[in-house]
Amino acid sequence: MRRTSFARWPCSIARTMDLLGDQWTLLIMREAFNGVRRFDRFQAELGIARNTLTERLDRLTGAGLLDRVRYQDRPARYEYPLTEMGRDFFPVIAAIIRWGDQWLADSAGPPRLLRHLDCGEAAATAIVGCTQCGGTMTADNVLMEPGPGMVT
Amino acid sequence: MRRTSFARWPCSIARTMDLLGDQWTLLIMREAFNGVRRFDRFQAELGIARNTLTERLDRLTGAGLLDRVRYQDRPARYEYPLTEMGRDFFPVIAAIIRWGDQWLADSAGPPRLLRHLDCGEAAATAIVGCTQCGGTMTADNVLMEPGPGMVT
Repeated sequence: MRRTSFARWPCSIARTMDLLGDQWTLLIMREAFNGVRRFDRFQAELGIARNTLTERLDRLTGAGLLDRVRYQDRPARYEYPLTEMGRDFFPVIAAIIRWGDQWLADSAGPPRLLRHLDCGEAAATAIVGCTQCGGTMTADNVLMEPGPGMVT
Repeated sequence: MRRTSFARWPCSIARTMDLLGDQWTLLIMREAFNGVRRFDRFQAELGIARNTLTERLDRLTGAGLLDRVRYQDRPARYEYPLTEMGRDFFPVIAAIIRWGDQWLADSAGPPRLLRHLDCGEAAATAIVGCTQCGGTMTADNVLMEPGPGMVT
């Protein structure tokens, strides 16, 4: 089946999801935020097939979320550090973790905790607020309206 | 190819992505936050094939993000309103929109604006903060640590 391409839709959700592609891509990003940079570490942490990992790293590098830096010459070896664009994706990961912990975690509790270094809290959860007033943004107090980039 | 199931991984990102499945699911959620509830409206707004839409609505209903309510008898017709679990997903959508607007929008600007009704701001952007101290959470000030639900 041919996959629909969402890359040109006038929608930031469609474009983001088109770029991410699938589950593996987000899990690779999670490992990148954990400090993983090398192919073999990604592979060991995720138990992902090598060809799948290669394809997803290429995708993330091409999209600009990861960089590709040679760290050894013979044989050639590369690291995949987060770019500024990739680091800026962290809030999405934090929002997904918060929701998954709330609704999908086992009774044992969340599998991962976020330590917020600014306040030291070991079990910080993400809250999504408005840049203007700082208040929370929820389904009940936000309306989506057409913006300047909307094609009509 | 058999798709890897991430549902039992001890990771809230893996479980969330397993549940969401693909791009369409998030776009259906976007329309649900826009107030869309009926099959034909989802279909018209997204230009999605009817069998694909049926499968994704079943998935979201089965996962608990949408409810399924009969609103007409002959022929039987159903609405798909957001559940509490579904409404609580909004911060993830807001975080994705913020990132996509920042990195993937055309020069014309963002295709959609978020109006935050609590302060009236027409172009509110989402910021992800810590529930404990209110400070922002970024890749630079958050560490992921094993939590009680981590299987070792």
